[in-house]
Amino acid sequence: MTDTVILNRDIEQLAVNTIKMLSVDAIEKAKSGHPGLPTGAMDYAYVLWTQFLRFNPNDPTWPNRDRFILSAGHGCMLLYSLLHLTGYDVSLDDLKNFRQWGSSTPGHPEFGHTAGVDATTGPLGQGFANGVGMAMAERMMAARFNKPGFDLFNNRIFAICSDGDLMEGISHEAASLAGHLGLGNIIYIYDDNHISIGGNTSISYSDDVAKRFEGYHWHIQSIDGHDRIAAATAIQNAIEEKDRPSLIIARTIIAKDAPNKHNTSGAHGEPFGPDETKAMKEALGWPLEPAFFVPDGVYDVFRARPKAVEAEYNEWRDMLKGYRQQYPDLADQLDAMKELRVPADLTDKLIEAASAFDPDATRSYSGKIMQVAAELIPSLAGGSADLEPSTKTLLKETTSITRNTFDGRNIHFGVRELGMGGVVNGLAYYGYFIPYGATFLVFSDYMRSAVRLAALSDLQCVWIWTHDSIFVGEDGPTHEPIEHIPSLRAMPGLSVIRPADAAETAVAWAAALQNTGCPTALILSRQKAPAIDRKNISDAKGLLRGAYIVSDPADGNPDVILIATGTEVRTTQDALKLLDAEGVKARLVSMPSWDLFEKQGKDYRDSILPPAVVKRVAVEAASPFGWERYVGTGGLVLGINRFGASAPLKVLQENFGYTPEKIAQSIREYLKG
Amino acid sequence: MTDTVILNRDIEQLAVNTIKMLSVDAIEKAKSGHPGLPTGAMDYAYVLWTQFLRFNPNDPTWPNRDRFILSAGHGCMLLYSLLHLTGYDVSLDDLKNFRQWGSSTPGHPEFGHTAGVDATTGPLGQGFANGVGMAMAERMMAARFNKPGFDLFNNRIFAICSDGDLMEGISHEAASLAGHLGLGNIIYIYDDNHISIGGNTSISYSDDVAKRFEGYHWHIQSIDGHDRIAAATAIQNAIEEKDRPSLIIARTIIAKDAPNKHNTSGAHGEPFGPDETKAMKEALGWPLEPAFFVPDGVYDVFRARPKAVEAEYNEWRDMLKGYRQQYPDLADQLDAMKELRVPADLTDKLIEAASAFDPDATRSYSGKIMQVAAELIPSLAGGSADLEPSTKTLLKETTSITRNTFDGRNIHFGVRELGMGGVVNGLAYYGYFIPYGATFLVFSDYMRSAVRLAALSDLQCVWIWTHDSIFVGEDGPTHEPIEHIPSLRAMPGLSVIRPADAAETAVAWAAALQNTGCPTALILSRQKAPAIDRKNISDAKGLLRGAYIVSDPADGNPDVILIATGTEVRTTQDALKLLDAEGVKARLVSMPSWDLFEKQGKDYRDSILPPAVVKRVAVEAASPFGWERYVGTGGLVLGINRFGASAPLKVLQENFGYTPEKIAQSIREYLKG
Repeated sequence: MTDTVILNRDIEQLAVNTIKMLSVDAIEKAKSGHPGLPTGAMDYAYVLWTQFLRFNPNDPTWPNRDRFILSAGHGCMLLYSLLHLTGYDVSLDDLKNFRQWGSSTPGHPEFGHTAGVDATTGPLGQGFANGVGMAMAERMMAARFNKPGFDLFNNRIFAICSDGDLMEGISHEAASLAGHLGLGNIIYIYDDNHISIGGNTSISYSDDVAKRFEGYHWHIQSIDGHDRIAAATAIQNAIEEKDRPSLIIARTIIAKDAPNKHNTSGAHGEPFGPDETKAMKEALGWPLEPAFFVPDGVYDVFRARPKAVEAEYNEWRDMLKGYRQQYPDLADQLDAMKELRVPADLTDKLIEAASAFDPDATRSYSGKIMQVAAELIPSLAGGSADLEPSTKTLLKETTSITRNTFDGRNIHFGVRELGMGGVVNGLAYYGYFIPYGATFLVFSDYMRSAVRLAALSDLQCVWIWTHDSIFVGEDGPTHEPIEHIPSLRAMPGLSVIRPADAAETAVAWAAALQNTGCPTALILSRQKAPAIDRKNISDAKGLLRGAYIVSDPADGNPDVILIATGTEVRTTQDALKLLDAEGVKARLVSMPSWDLFEKQGKDYRDSILPPAVVKRVAVEAASPFGWERYVGTGGLVLGINRFGASAPLKVLQENFGYTPEKIAQSIREYLKG
Repeated sequence: MTDTVILNRDIEQLAVNTIKMLSVDAIEKAKSGHPGLPTGAMDYAYVLWTQFLRFNPNDPTWPNRDRFILSAGHGCMLLYSLLHLTGYDVSLDDLKNFRQWGSSTPGHPEFGHTAGVDATTGPLGQGFANGVGMAMAERMMAARFNKPGFDLFNNRIFAICSDGDLMEGISHEAASLAGHLGLGNIIYIYDDNHISIGGNTSISYSDDVAKRFEGYHWHIQSIDGHDRIAAATAIQNAIEEKDRPSLIIARTIIAKDAPNKHNTSGAHGEPFGPDETKAMKEALGWPLEPAFFVPDGVYDVFRARPKAVEAEYNEWRDMLKGYRQQYPDLADQLDAMKELRVPADLTDKLIEAASAFDPDATRSYSGKIMQVAAELIPSLAGGSADLEPSTKTLLKETTSITRNTFDGRNIHFGVRELGMGGVVNGLAYYGYFIPYGATFLVFSDYMRSAVRLAALSDLQCVWIWTHDSIFVGEDGPTHEPIEHIPSLRAMPGLSVIRPADAAETAVAWAAALQNTGCPTALILSRQKAPAIDRKNISDAKGLLRGAYIVSDPADGNPDVILIATGTEVRTTQDALKLLDAEGVKARLVSMPSWDLFEKQGKDYRDSILPPAVVKRVAVEAASPFGWERYVGTGGLVLGINRFGASAPLKVLQENFGYTPEKIAQSIREYLKG
């Protein structure tokens, strides 16, 4: 750099401009990206990252670091620029590789992919809810572990949200819950730039955001988002407000220093182009060349912050050492939670517990297994979307978290399925928790976008979806899942398990709790699920391999393979008893999880489904979609190709063909044909 | 009845108690249902239905009737009781068959199934959003057709909402949009009973609802929900408020007159049981027998309302006759809209238009086709969730609706995918419209619950989902759909179409516009989709049958069938050109729609996919889930079993194997193996 090109000698302004211009240059080079946010949010982002945020680029997963979520994930060049400037493992070359194959700077921030990214964002509103989950996690960890003199957990959750985040319904669900719980550790900045892709936000949006959030009992401040002193004051006030989550409404000008694009929707989501980039650099007195220019002294400004935090970081580590000595049992529990530790013999323990269960629905078995699992695994915590009694998910040996008490493990999410999804993901992002969220399977539709992000981000959470089929009964088609099971099976990275009885439910939970780095969906029944006849209860461990043989004909040479899941395993077994007498030689396979089965080697798969046995039947009270994979195009799928109906269980079983007699008859006809 | 058992001689109170006790008895008989709402909401519901609601049970689809939505659909016995008492085609026997197989009184209200039900509800919050769509529809119809002296459209939209409805994020999205548009024709009553399934709502919910809705610019009143005079005053005030939607917060006591269950969560969703039912009847001085008792004079009270409306109804019909004479062209357009009429030669017209398009993405073809379709079909109206420029869905020859002008056909939904889903459904429920809603395919996840209700309710809407694959490119995995196409194919009643080029896009639109009683999803590309080589552009009409032959080997005897969808048809065709030279004899099938294909007879299906040709390959840049149906277990599926990546298009094509060379190579290996 030379003295002549940098007109503004104010180092702070230079630092702010660097955030902006690195972002503009990276997007320009990628010929793709969203320059709008980084060129509007840079002032308060600078203040936050250089004066308030507690972090250590050398230890990006420091448990008590403040979390920073860019809920408006499309503006990720803001975040990547900050990560680079503050000393995270994001180099100038990484910025130059923005949005390229294999780079650490993908098109939207990805947790686990880039150091310093605390949440995968992009789908709007999700980050907002993740932060609520992280804030709950902090409170829950503090309640469990902090002791006088050992403030192990006291981090804050910062986020930047856009108009889009606040328009999304998930922001309502999460904000309402955060206000209800009085999560004062939340400090969100709303980047109010009045611009969205479609044009001025006024074409579709005129909320009085302050009033709306007052309705949620949040603490509200409004500032000029380019006034850095105002930003510092507002952030400080928000930090001091301990009883309410804080929203700082920062009015900004999108693309503030771009002479032609400022305050236009064109600045939101496309590169400025060479002319406007040049014009902007000229307006700022920025050197035209080289791109990705960082003026002298600017790194120092940004790196002063982690240096200032270093003492606190070291103190924290020393504190943890002291804690280990003074509270060894708690420290061990803390380690167990950090590792998401489960006992080595978990599966056996849970099967053993299940062996004593009276016949019931798999949701009820699950509820009982959870009590056992919660005792063994301190990481387990969660709740349901106002369906505790129906989903059987309340942990009995602990309390529910409330505004004032966070030492419990039950969370009442309210009728907020998607918010629950985002909050559960937030709990998982925070670390320490294997969180679960429960609702009816049919309402998994409300939360799919969050479930997908859990899968994409390798989060170990457990989705408990009960009322798994038309056997919901009287509630009728609005409440009866049909397409949901195959729709979820199609999602990469999600393990889907539909257990058949108590033993399988126990093993399904064991799988979920051992599925490190992967969310699991447990698909559970409202209808009774009596035990399937198997030689040994431990055969149910076959669930861990996705599918296993329940029974074979006496000579071990089946003519036909019957594959079933969930409660249809037992019904099919009863049907088979009818067919046995007629000389049908069938193998019965329970296949609770396609994805676990597909992870097995070919030998195992062929041992369960020998290629030579081409007559095959699948029985599942759901859309038949996809079953040709296992029964072939010549197979029979006893599925449901329509919506359900409102009627008592037995009437539905009869009319949809899921009695042992009807199943036997269908198989009989198939074998004849 | 006898004089002695009815203590309260006040006929109004008797009428109110009848709503309540019919509901309690029906739920008791069904041994299933939700008595909470009908035993808390009866007072204001009585006032609304006997003093304000304009309806004609003899003409349940009278276009200018007021709409009534029970957004809290679980309380459907309230609605069924009212429908019965006011003279709709819902008999006492129907009430006695509540929740039984084949009855007209299913577990949640179903549009098209029960006369007088204006929207399918149950999944919470959906009805709230549907009403916003209906209110927009009314305004749009009034703007287009009302003339001085011909107030054809001036109906109001009433709804009852519960805590659950207001906790759901969709209520935020829809309320924000309704307030933005100043929909004064909305009058919603919030049944604020402080009870949810999990217990008192205070375990998870403490919103200041009035303040929240003031933030949306709604008109708010709070009343004692059991004070019928207050309810009448509030409803009247709400009707008179023309510039803002109205919310009446009615504090009610759930199960008000049930001596033991009142104000308990146990009253929400299970039958009271014989003891409590008896106790309640005794408390009300109600005869214990017979159940389903309707005191003398009560029918008269309820039927006085439709009688009072009759004059208005007849005037409206006369007005329409006069309108036909005075405005014959408009009247014809009105009829066209009512019939959702499309020209008989629509497909040809759209193909012809498409024949002139320059090579582009299918989203762009779609945008151009929509301009033509909008001209031909006055029912077509809709918009996108803040993605107009990206989804290419803005109609150019019309304006956008705004707070003050509703004569346009473009709707700016804002960043509110699920709200858009509910509003689009509301436009369809209202009649007259073939509404569409657009966003990126990956964000269809946010709106699945609404899409499902469209399918369940046989609503002809069009979902336009662009950015159909990893070929989104730089935006990366958060924005790249993988599992969405199969997930949507699994949904009953939804037609899913992924066209390959301009001609197919034209025919896809023709299918959607002719798909009476069925929603259609158009899956469209961001990437360029040059025309596939076909003998004649009209071959693309094969799309209407789901799949068709693009090309065959010279001798007409293929050794292998290649099946592709969307942009992969052309890439596969290019691959085939490479293989041709090597003597590979392949048939190329374009299969834009599985569901349309499956509606064809076996002959047609076998003519496209002859069973004798067992070597088959499917090419689709999506999860391979389900393709075994067409390629068999021995087939090859060139799909994607992981999440996508952030990189430029060509890099992704190369790395994921979707170049002609890579596809040819995969096929080559498959044929060898």
